[in-house]
Amino acid sequence: MTTRLIGLDWGSTHLRAYRFGERGEVEAVRALPCGIRQLPADGFADAFAQAVDGWPLAPVIACGMVGSRNGWLEVPYLDTPVRIDRLAAALTPLATAEGRIVHIVPGLRDPSRPDVMRGEETQVAGVLAQDERAASHARLLLPGTHSKWVRVQDGAVGGFATVMTGELYGLLNQHSILGAALPTPVADDSAFQRGVTMARDSGPAGALSRVFAARTLMLDGVLAPTSVADFLSGLLIGEELRMALAAGWVQPNDTVTMVGDDALCARYLRAAGAFDLRIANAPDDTTAHGLWRIASEARLISPPATA
Amino acid sequence: MTTRLIGLDWGSTHLRAYRFGERGEVEAVRALPCGIRQLPADGFADAFAQAVDGWPLAPVIACGMVGSRNGWLEVPYLDTPVRIDRLAAALTPLATAEGRIVHIVPGLRDPSRPDVMRGEETQVAGVLAQDERAASHARLLLPGTHSKWVRVQDGAVGGFATVMTGELYGLLNQHSILGAALPTPVADDSAFQRGVTMARDSGPAGALSRVFAARTLMLDGVLAPTSVADFLSGLLIGEELRMALAAGWVQPNDTVTMVGDDALCARYLRAAGAFDLRIANAPDDTTAHGLWRIASEARLISPPATA
Repeated sequence: MTTRLIGLDWGSTHLRAYRFGERGEVEAVRALPCGIRQLPADGFADAFAQAVDGWPLAPVIACGMVGSRNGWLEVPYLDTPVRIDRLAAALTPLATAEGRIVHIVPGLRDPSRPDVMRGEETQVAGVLAQDERAASHARLLLPGTHSKWVRVQDGAVGGFATVMTGELYGLLNQHSILGAALPTPVADDSAFQRGVTMARDSGPAGALSRVFAARTLMLDGVLAPTSVADFLSGLLIGEELRMALAAGWVQPNDTVTMVGDDALCARYLRAAGAFDLRIANAPDDTTAHGLWRIASEARLISPPATA
Repeated sequence: MTTRLIGLDWGSTHLRAYRFGERGEVEAVRALPCGIRQLPADGFADAFAQAVDGWPLAPVIACGMVGSRNGWLEVPYLDTPVRIDRLAAALTPLATAEGRIVHIVPGLRDPSRPDVMRGEETQVAGVLAQDERAASHARLLLPGTHSKWVRVQDGAVGGFATVMTGELYGLLNQHSILGAALPTPVADDSAFQRGVTMARDSGPAGALSRVFAARTLMLDGVLAPTSVADFLSGLLIGEELRMALAAGWVQPNDTVTMVGDDALCARYLRAAGAFDLRIANAPDDTTAHGLWRIASEARLISPPATA
């Protein structure tokens, strides 16, 4: 069993370490509560040592907020449009005290908005590595705290946009008059669909013009207090889809390739039914595939030994 | 000096008591930190006694969240369309232990959205009391934590809409990645105008599609960390104006009569310059005028003694 690569997915709130075998298969995964927001400024070396403890001295590649201003080493963004294979040429090495070198993947920046991503570029590389057709033309959606809508053309990321759907959902539920002081939410698909439909039908005014309905529908007895969270989830996800069509990030009847958490992706799939939009799930483990692909293109990995 | 009426403006976070003289002039005002959210469920009687302590036994009228489910006494909403003079016929009396009777003004409900207000109906009555022309046709804007856009036709409130602009501004500044952990804001009019313009130009996608720019413009060095708050203020107020036009709450070149806090109204005036929208400030003290007007119509006030 030969370890050919160690990959780190190191974001704001998580650190996942992958140990890759001979042909890129993931032999082991470790998850540590060492996101860059959870670490002191001088805590990166220790967290890294813990993540790779006992693993062989293989090349290391890392993506995510670890390369941000508040990360271990700030790595400049690459501006779009940018070919995905340029990520490999732009890795920035960081030598650790134990003599390892961590190669950090740069984030992307769309100067037309402006907009930025760190970590998602590696997921995009992972999707394209597994789907040659997507490399020529694709619309990708990476839902989450900060959802990303990515336009791929001719193997290049043409541009992208961030929508803070997940963060806004959290703010409204935890801190606003709509959600604070409510009982623990209970799943309610009809409340979710009511939110989706209301967002779709909000037209060019947009769903911010309707969000107070979470309160008035509850006062009216139409929405149970335990269903407000699902209503808001539907309203905000529906608004994101409405917005993506209105902004031209996708065209009606486009197929959008989606990458993300299973439960969250299931919500987007349900919401998409109310719109002229097809959403298809990407294969799993896109970050691991992306890390392996970028490291391969960067020639961090020596070719497999022949028998 | 005869006290003819005591009026209470009793909301979620404030209690203001007005003592009115012979012809409706305000002789004294008291402000107490006794909003309904700051009081225990059985704290209303004490807060009221404190508010009117030493004042003569005049009739009492009260508006605002004091009439809500979490208030002193729940008073049903009147559904729109509703003539403003129906507020007087729908006052609900509440007898206090000291033998006073508090007449509570009902809130309004727009069943078409649904949407609700409590307190603002009295401000609307105050504007119409001072401006006969507005009573036949007006578009009112009451900016705040929960901004209200009100359509007045033939002396009736035809309908209205709530936008949570102020609350959203607070959430994004205090709790989101955009605003939390930033230094104390410094006034920056060009950042404000940048936000307004970005919202206006967001078109039918709406400014939620651009709000992440508060972070990327800061990372780019275009926006100082101390200017993020004013950028977000401009973006959200601009979005509210864009939305009001897109939703048809106002028509291009309508004149909107605005009632609210001076500093906040000044922001809306500056933002309106970027839109085809004229905003005019209403006279001051609309709540006091509204309380007097409704009490007069309800014949709570005996006619002035003739000399």
